[in-house]
Amino acid sequence: MNQQKAILVVGAGDATGSAIAKRFAREGYVACVARRNAEKLQPLVDDITSAGGQARAFGCDARIESQVVEMVETIEREVGPLEVVVFNIGANVRFSITETTERVYRKVWEMAALSGFLTGREAARVMLPRNQGTIIFTGATASLRGGNGFCAFAGAKFALRALAQSMARELGPKGIHVAHPIIDGAIDTAFIRETFPEMYAKKDQDGILNPDHIADTYWNIHIQPRDCWVHEMDLRPWQETF
Amino acid sequence: MNQQKAILVVGAGDATGSAIAKRFAREGYVACVARRNAEKLQPLVDDITSAGGQARAFGCDARIESQVVEMVETIEREVGPLEVVVFNIGANVRFSITETTERVYRKVWEMAALSGFLTGREAARVMLPRNQGTIIFTGATASLRGGNGFCAFAGAKFALRALAQSMARELGPKGIHVAHPIIDGAIDTAFIRETFPEMYAKKDQDGILNPDHIADTYWNIHIQPRDCWVHEMDLRPWQETF
Amino acid sequence: MNQQKAILVVGAGDATGSAIAKRFAREGYVACVARRNAEKLQPLVDDITSAGGQARAFGCDARIESQVVEMVETIEREVGPLEVVVFNIGANVRFSITETTERVYRKVWEMAALSGFLTGREAARVMLPRNQGTIIFTGATASLRGGNGFCAFAGAKFALRALAQSMARELGPKGIHVAHPIIDGAIDTAFIRETFPEMYAKKDQDGILNPDHIADTYWNIHIQPRDCWVHEMDLRPWQETF
Amino acid sequence: MNQQKAILVVGAGDATGSAIAKRFAREGYVACVARRNAEKLQPLVDDITSAGGQARAFGCDARIESQVVEMVETIEREVGPLEVVVFNIGANVRFSITETTERVYRKVWEMAALSGFLTGREAARVMLPRNQGTIIFTGATASLRGGNGFCAFAGAKFALRALAQSMARELGPKGIHVAHPIIDGAIDTAFIRETFPEMYAKKDQDGILNPDHIADTYWNIHIQPRDCWVHEMDLRPWQETF
Repeated sequence: MNQQKAILVVGAGDATGSAIAKRFAREGYVACVARRNAEKLQPLVDDITSAGGQARAFGCDARIESQVVEMVETIEREVGPLEVVVFNIGANVRFSITETTERVYRKVWEMAALSGFLTGREAARVMLPRNQGTIIFTGATASLRGGNGFCAFAGAKFALRALAQSMARELGPKGIHVAHPIIDGAIDTAFIRETFPEMYAKKDQDGILNPDHIADTYWNIHIQPRDCWVHEMDLRPWQETF
Repeated sequence: MNQQKAILVVGAGDATGSAIAKRFAREGYVACVARRNAEKLQPLVDDITSAGGQARAFGCDARIESQVVEMVETIEREVGPLEVVVFNIGANVRFSITETTERVYRKVWEMAALSGFLTGREAARVMLPRNQGTIIFTGATASLRGGNGFCAFAGAKFALRALAQSMARELGPKGIHVAHPIIDGAIDTAFIRETFPEMYAKKDQDGILNPDHIADTYWNIHIQPRDCWVHEMDLRPWQETF
Repeated sequence: MNQQKAILVVGAGDATGSAIAKRFAREGYVACVARRNAEKLQPLVDDITSAGGQARAFGCDARIESQVVEMVETIEREVGPLEVVVFNIGANVRFSITETTERVYRKVWEMAALSGFLTGREAARVMLPRNQGTIIFTGATASLRGGNGFCAFAGAKFALRALAQSMARELGPKGIHVAHPIIDGAIDTAFIRETFPEMYAKKDQDGILNPDHIADTYWNIHIQPRDCWVHEMDLRPWQETF
Repeated sequence: MNQQKAILVVGAGDATGSAIAKRFAREGYVACVARRNAEKLQPLVDDITSAGGQARAFGCDARIESQVVEMVETIEREVGPLEVVVFNIGANVRFSITETTERVYRKVWEMAALSGFLTGREAARVMLPRNQGTIIFTGATASLRGGNGFCAFAGAKFALRALAQSMARELGPKGIHVAHPIIDGAIDTAFIRETFPEMYAKKDQDGILNPDHIADTYWNIHIQPRDCWVHEMDLRPWQETF
């Protein structure tokens, strides 16, 4: 099935990653979806294929260089050229500074920044010879400001933003579109529904982000002509204070 | 012709304003286009109507409160409810600090900030009772940073950004979408073609912004569902350094 | 009394301006203090002179070009070279967008931005031939972000920040130090005591800024060697959230 | 020698760290200086003691939690209460994205961010019961913006800034002053002299930062009264473009 255009979504386990994969599959892309446990991706793959799309699940710990390298090579070899790579792994934790363990600080960075670096670098490696491609890193409020309890999470998200800026400045003039949308608000996910029910209650009045609408935005980013590229944009519900 | 949905583009004289008016006219909006000299808008009105759209030209000095108030009232009364208002007046000048006259400093602010305030306020006035509408202010690189020679221009663009932020924070929770796209690069306009030919030469390789693509972005901003609104985004050609 | 070194504080009517004037007078500068009504400056002049310093009051509406030009010329001619100029006029008002009149929007800008431009430009004019001098513009929280009700005030403070940045980038390489300290919190002034008594109550625990400490910071900015200049810094009480 | 007030400078090996240690020693603080190889600190310790000050060298790999914990405990037990902690480790490297190895990306973060986290956390731990203390993290241009070739360095410096912001917001209201000065320019160090001779040549005209002047600024930050604290400030030579 070589020579089809492919999208890779790293961090496809949550509602946002799934919605992005489905959106691009609907446009004819083979949706390569990755998370640590590939089996858990089966429902997503089934959804996409039953809707007439193509999908392929990859078990990949994106913190481990060799796994990311191998996954990207496999896609290029067996699926087709990667036109779009989305990095969507978060790691939202909150601890006071003295209760932040070295293990937590390191792990949050590995999940949300190191993994982004490895994903972005391997994406760049295959896109550069083609002078073409879109790389999107999902940002959050914590990408822009630190906060009481957020030294680990904001540290990782700041680092990811630095990566996105550095890659955009290096790779833009080589034809690769690097974007960093910043999601500022709760998303309609199982995590929010179960952990922050009072936030979830705002869903009725469109007070939390619909993953499908985030996915539409990512699609719009991808199809921008190269004379008019966005690098950073904030996305939030109408009621959200900022 | 009452009860049709309308867009108002203040500063419709340049390529960007024209492209936005055409884009929304194509989607069924009556394009109300404004600049100081209404006669100069006739070619734009003709373009829109010959393409099957509807347009109406307004002579309006947006620095004068009574003219803005009257224009908005006329549109609401004779055309239909304003769903979208775009403020697109720039005033790009460059003088060293000691060569910036009081007259220039004041005039640039009146054109690029005071006019934006009057336009935005009158837009808010008619949209608030409907809890609905989109207001877009066009930003520039000088909205984000001052520079040698830019005390007047950056002063006005910074002020416009403060207006956009303040209005977004006040009006978002009332259902009105306020956005501030930042155009970071030369646009394909007569001004650039004549004044900066070396910039214009980059057009062949998509090195300057196509007004139609800016207009597509404005359209995408307008149709965003209210759970997923952008406030600020940067737009630039792929080759542009930033 | 020619050839003494002079400081000019425009907006010397409030506690901050007074404290700055006194601080520099203590260091041997002739404190030239300005506000619209010169008579109201007499207590400040008396304070400074009775402490052994030198001061001179100027009645000056800093929004009016000719008055600023004349004041600066008078100081240079009759007092001595201006080594330091501080612009300290604020105009903190809060109105919803639809209740902001054109008159308020314009007046706030004239007080907090146009006056700053005129003051800064005339300072530059006399400092440039000497390749030396310090120009400080007082910023506020509203210099950094707009907010519900702050379209006029934030507009003016954003414009002043653009001025400070533009002047720093132009004049730094010519030997003139331009700084923009941002005061983020209530200051111990009559205005706060009378208008926001609940803020003022925090004074006992150092919860509001002491003007003398702001003045110390301004002094420290001025004496920085030219290899190590600050342009922007935020100042706030320890308890202040940000 | 218990109960003397102490400062800890982590990353005391370069000119900046040394200057800070000397500056505080001159004010009566016991200068606890740390780098991986304690022996290399002997000249600095000798300098301080021969000038009449007190100093103590610590061999500490600040990337290793147990070493940082032990060092801070030793200081508190054997020297006196830590009033000031300065984190000054940099790791300026530049590689294109595809040439940045996982090892480099990780190592730069460990040196410039993880070490800062461990240092800051242990500082907070001993300062919190006293509701007093100053923690300063040294920032750089790369703390504010990514750049072509800087994905690793900017990633680490962004993360350190997130740490400083998060700690300031948590610890300020508990009496601990957290600051993040940003050094924007070359410093007069052996590294610059040897690696960038054309930059170093600007020293004659004060075109590079003098470490003693940076140290003066750090001292001024420390002695600010708590009603008037700076969190972030930029420092650059007068000629530096920004």
